[in-house]
Amino acid sequence: MILTVTLNAALDITYDVPALRPHTSHRVTEVTERPGGKGLNVARVLAALGHDVTVTGFAGGATGRTLREQLADTPGVRDALVPVAGATRRTIAVVDAMTGDTTQLNEPGPLITPGEWSAFTEAYDELLKPASAVALCGSLPPGVPVGAYAQLVRAARAAGVPVLLDSSGEPLRRGLAARPDVIKPNADELAELTGSHEPLRATRDARRRGAHAVVASLGAEGLLAVTPDGSWRAPAPDRVKGNPTGAGDSAVAGLLSGYVENLPWPDRLARAVALSAATVLAPVAGEFDRAAYEDLLGRVTVTHQTQTAA
Amino acid sequence: MILTVTLNAALDITYDVPALRPHTSHRVTEVTERPGGKGLNVARVLAALGHDVTVTGFAGGATGRTLREQLADTPGVRDALVPVAGATRRTIAVVDAMTGDTTQLNEPGPLITPGEWSAFTEAYDELLKPASAVALCGSLPPGVPVGAYAQLVRAARAAGVPVLLDSSGEPLRRGLAARPDVIKPNADELAELTGSHEPLRATRDARRRGAHAVVASLGAEGLLAVTPDGSWRAPAPDRVKGNPTGAGDSAVAGLLSGYVENLPWPDRLARAVALSAATVLAPVAGEFDRAAYEDLLGRVTVTHQTQTAA
Repeated sequence: MILTVTLNAALDITYDVPALRPHTSHRVTEVTERPGGKGLNVARVLAALGHDVTVTGFAGGATGRTLREQLADTPGVRDALVPVAGATRRTIAVVDAMTGDTTQLNEPGPLITPGEWSAFTEAYDELLKPASAVALCGSLPPGVPVGAYAQLVRAARAAGVPVLLDSSGEPLRRGLAARPDVIKPNADELAELTGSHEPLRATRDARRRGAHAVVASLGAEGLLAVTPDGSWRAPAPDRVKGNPTGAGDSAVAGLLSGYVENLPWPDRLARAVALSAATVLAPVAGEFDRAAYEDLLGRVTVTHQTQTAA
Repeated sequence: MILTVTLNAALDITYDVPALRPHTSHRVTEVTERPGGKGLNVARVLAALGHDVTVTGFAGGATGRTLREQLADTPGVRDALVPVAGATRRTIAVVDAMTGDTTQLNEPGPLITPGEWSAFTEAYDELLKPASAVALCGSLPPGVPVGAYAQLVRAARAAGVPVLLDSSGEPLRRGLAARPDVIKPNADELAELTGSHEPLRATRDARRRGAHAVVASLGAEGLLAVTPDGSWRAPAPDRVKGNPTGAGDSAVAGLLSGYVENLPWPDRLARAVALSAATVLAPVAGEFDRAAYEDLLGRVTVTHQTQTAA
């Protein structure tokens, strides 16, 4: 079983509007809703790849109830979210039909009490026992200590469970010090962490700060991995156009699934890049186009970087 | 008991953001939620004035559940909403802290089936029996026939219950033909209905189209009433600044409460104007400032319009 942790789960709502004009009133033409937050997105892709996945984190209030009802309809994903008194946040993506651009409104998330945080860490320790890998994903809701990911990385390592951390800012910085197996920053997160906008330099620097392996997702440039086994670049085979929402989460699912199937790094990266591109191509944000995935997977070229070149 | 009908009830959500910039991502700093839709707003004000109110219309889905839970916490308001399979719509008001301006995103509302519409009309006929007055408020959700308000006005008149209609567009136009006791259009609705932007001419024209009395709400100009007992103007005593959300609904509550207390038209109008201004002044959208209301009520001047002047 693969475990994904989403401390700040969300009910992701998408609104289609003909054209967004600030300070006016809009009739929403189409409303879609689905369970969101990075760890839940990762879980959905892992389940679609045939893996057994358990999701944990927090859920509460009417929005949490809706999220859990929708999760119950997702085959292959087991719900081990911990109930809280506060309400699960909503995120609203307003898609402007005229330009195709998205305006995002993200609620802050429920205030987690110290008692709720303890209840979570106890549940997490139990869930680690049968886990073959764990992914810690996304932002922290109010009330959760900023060192939360460091604590969860240490617990996973103590339990002998490989741990991937996908977060940003101070929670990522603190989590990194606890030596996770993999981090998967994007270009912005990498620059924020290291102060460098040069991807290779920044990726190596991030690794020196504590991660065993760093897989940087560089948008159209694909992935850049610096690992104990070597360094690789894996660009997307085609320039894909579409909605990048969830592309990073699909890459995490690709890395994790490749890990638990004992694939070598180049195959893990190929899978992550193909899934990521197939997510951009899918009409629904965060889903992936399976036919595109299978086609792309055969065409990804992963290039080993020599010490000098890398 | 006063009955208010809200066929397209809503969960009204307000998001405070530091500054709204289209096509970027925003952290919402404050989230507030409350039962919405014009008839529910009217009911809340009537209850605050000490009246016994019953609300009906439709509610469904997780949002409907939340709305009903919040309604249960509103003293003096009895929930007689009819359950439907679809989900009650959300409305999102995004308030830009920098400019104070609001950007509104309104979901369309659930699709009402013919069976649900029949269930509603049966419930409505029962609820009319003990009612001293009924207000029909707001837009129609998908699936409800465009002539719905005409049907509901006729049923109220057949039951001998005075009926106020506050809607817009074709549902207002059709409803008007069934001869409601009062309509309360704002300047835009009046212009859409009659084609005239001259308030007095448009108000008289609207009355000729079927309403016994027309009370036009003209923003800062206050109210203009054309009734069988005469015509009056009731401007707000002060130029009030604030959030106009719900000001029209408070005016409806003022008119209805004045009617059931057998107040003469000038007193009803004074109450409606004072409540409306006190709603603009209240810090929370749709609430009214009671102290401001009592102060303003004593200072409203209602002017009778002679046939020539009016």
